[in-house]
Amino acid sequence: MTEYEHILVKRDGDTVTITMNRAARRNSLSEEHLRELVAAFREAGQSDATGIVLAGAGPVFSAGHDFGDVAGRDLAGTRELLQVCTELMKLVQSVPQVVIARVHGLATAAGCQLVASCDLAVAAESAGFALPGGKGGWFCHTPAVPVARAVGRKRLMELALTGDPIDAATALEWGLVNRVVPDEQLDEAVAELLGRATRGSRASKGLGKVTLYAQLDRPEADAYAIALEVMAAASQTADAKEGMAAFLEKRKPEWPG
Amino acid sequence: MTEYEHILVKRDGDTVTITMNRAARRNSLSEEHLRELVAAFREAGQSDATGIVLAGAGPVFSAGHDFGDVAGRDLAGTRELLQVCTELMKLVQSVPQVVIARVHGLATAAGCQLVASCDLAVAAESAGFALPGGKGGWFCHTPAVPVARAVGRKRLMELALTGDPIDAATALEWGLVNRVVPDEQLDEAVAELLGRATRGSRASKGLGKVTLYAQLDRPEADAYAIALEVMAAASQTADAKEGMAAFLEKRKPEWPG
Amino acid sequence: MTEYEHILVKRDGDTVTITMNRAARRNSLSEEHLRELVAAFREAGQSDATGIVLAGAGPVFSAGHDFGDVAGRDLAGTRELLQVCTELMKLVQSVPQVVIARVHGLATAAGCQLVASCDLAVAAESAGFALPGGKGGWFCHTPAVPVARAVGRKRLMELALTGDPIDAATALEWGLVNRVVPDEQLDEAVAELLGRATRGSRASKGLGKVTLYAQLDRPEADAYAIALEVMAAASQTADAKEGMAAFLEKRKPEWPG
Repeated sequence: MTEYEHILVKRDGDTVTITMNRAARRNSLSEEHLRELVAAFREAGQSDATGIVLAGAGPVFSAGHDFGDVAGRDLAGTRELLQVCTELMKLVQSVPQVVIARVHGLATAAGCQLVASCDLAVAAESAGFALPGGKGGWFCHTPAVPVARAVGRKRLMELALTGDPIDAATALEWGLVNRVVPDEQLDEAVAELLGRATRGSRASKGLGKVTLYAQLDRPEADAYAIALEVMAAASQTADAKEGMAAFLEKRKPEWPG
Repeated sequence: MTEYEHILVKRDGDTVTITMNRAARRNSLSEEHLRELVAAFREAGQSDATGIVLAGAGPVFSAGHDFGDVAGRDLAGTRELLQVCTELMKLVQSVPQVVIARVHGLATAAGCQLVASCDLAVAAESAGFALPGGKGGWFCHTPAVPVARAVGRKRLMELALTGDPIDAATALEWGLVNRVVPDEQLDEAVAELLGRATRGSRASKGLGKVTLYAQLDRPEADAYAIALEVMAAASQTADAKEGMAAFLEKRKPEWPG
Repeated sequence: MTEYEHILVKRDGDTVTITMNRAARRNSLSEEHLRELVAAFREAGQSDATGIVLAGAGPVFSAGHDFGDVAGRDLAGTRELLQVCTELMKLVQSVPQVVIARVHGLATAAGCQLVASCDLAVAAESAGFALPGGKGGWFCHTPAVPVARAVGRKRLMELALTGDPIDAATALEWGLVNRVVPDEQLDEAVAELLGRATRGSRASKGLGKVTLYAQLDRPEADAYAIALEVMAAASQTADAKEGMAAFLEKRKPEWPG
């Protein structure tokens, strides 16, 4: 595997764990850090792994953009930084693996955006979530994009306008994360949910995931236009045929995919 | 009324009850079954009934597609099957009657899609909901379309990727159903909610329902462009005029519609 | 400040409070009342206030359209009324100030639409919310537009089709309001939440708010196309630069905006 400076990448069985490892900078997302995350997600995405865990080292999950890396940039430079950041968020949703956020601490701004962009998220009880741009001078415009699509509108407005953090229990109630567990059970809960989310045909699930993101946020008829064609085409794959045959013959499937 | 092989259709007062009646096949949705459901919804839709109950006979609400009917199909044949299925889902939303799902047992895949597609849903405590394609070889692409529009994004991902069922209480918390009641109170709860949802002017409500589906999932300005014109036009109907006159004259309205 | 007949406008510090003051008509929204609200929001929007409170005098927050003002109108007249009403709803979202609804009583039809259209909402325990057109002759087509975008789909259908009210606790659970407090603590809770929502750079927040509404309800890639360009441009403003500099220098920011 590639060597990285700002992140740790580990493969364990079918799972790749990508750990943001700039603890001294609260795992803030400098351009170099972002580019390494993009490279690692690309590499994991092209591997035969079935799941990806996104984690953070140190006390904080991620504090979002690194103001030390933003402050001196002109418009073109800031645009480029935000393009890399947005590329990462979209990549998380376009790799065929199930991506799960392991949120052990505070996730703010683009760090909160990362949690919202992952397919699934498990949080420790001591995690927190915020869009702090609301109480500063640079609003969390792009972080609010996936957060808005996870929580309701009034809740988005509260997060984005106040800039104040919500705790893990509130994040669960609002639908920003899938599970909240005591801190010491976080790894176990991540593994349990990821295990259930990565069963079945890898090929079918990869197509399934990207089709979900393609149909979301669209008028229902447009969503059906996409999902129907994909589902019809998918029925002709070896894995779909094997899945149906195994069901009808009451045996365990063997995925050719 | 038309005679059907796979379903039961009963009219009682202003309510038509359509019951999936393939208990031995867990009310799975073969093409013939789907075509009968389409015919029954069309017939009920053209009747003067005000409400439609969708129910299932036997222990299961509906297990979704009938793999015995899918397994041998080529692409064109599967497309046709999915087109009939999608036609049914859209028809449920385009008939002027209020359609309520009476979910007494497990609703999976296209069965869960039916629950999500109905205007309202009441579940018994022992009901369950799943998109099991996630752990198989044929992903629940089309079932995820209306389910995504009822529950939050992270919750959709969990349902679609794990394939595991959620119980009725979770479905209520996530907004997939409107009520959960003890099993023996299911009919009473369906009748109570449907009764309240079918009061008022039948013509006004039918227009209201289809306009709701037309404006959903669109940018707010597009939604207003639709809803404003419909609401202005609707103000000139006999029922709107009668409703306002009755309110102003403090008497009960008599709907001419 | 302008003199109004149907509303009260008060400036207190950085906050403008606009109070619907037709208590004898349950703060119903006649065309004149709507036009005054539009004028007041425009004036407040152009002021240097940072927050706007929308309140109602008397026992009811607002009963929606005034049937006495609708009943005699032809199509063109009703369209004009609805256009003014929709203009108000959009204006609430396009002024740079944070707009918070102070909901002390029943908010129905276009009154409920006002609550859904405000950025934030705090309700007293005795408040209630309804789209009563569902049980009448004139369906709540336009009120359902922002309500649909605050609550889930099945919940919208229940509100719109039954016409029955939900209580404040249910509105909180469904995401229609941000807080529910005992009646006597309403003003305090409104001030507290508004205070937190109006901190930080006024210029940054005003741009942030309107960008949020611009990106909502769109496919995520479209939302990013908007949010990324705004965020890059915003990075070059004096307030963004000051915010980052203050953060890096560990001092309090002084907003030049």
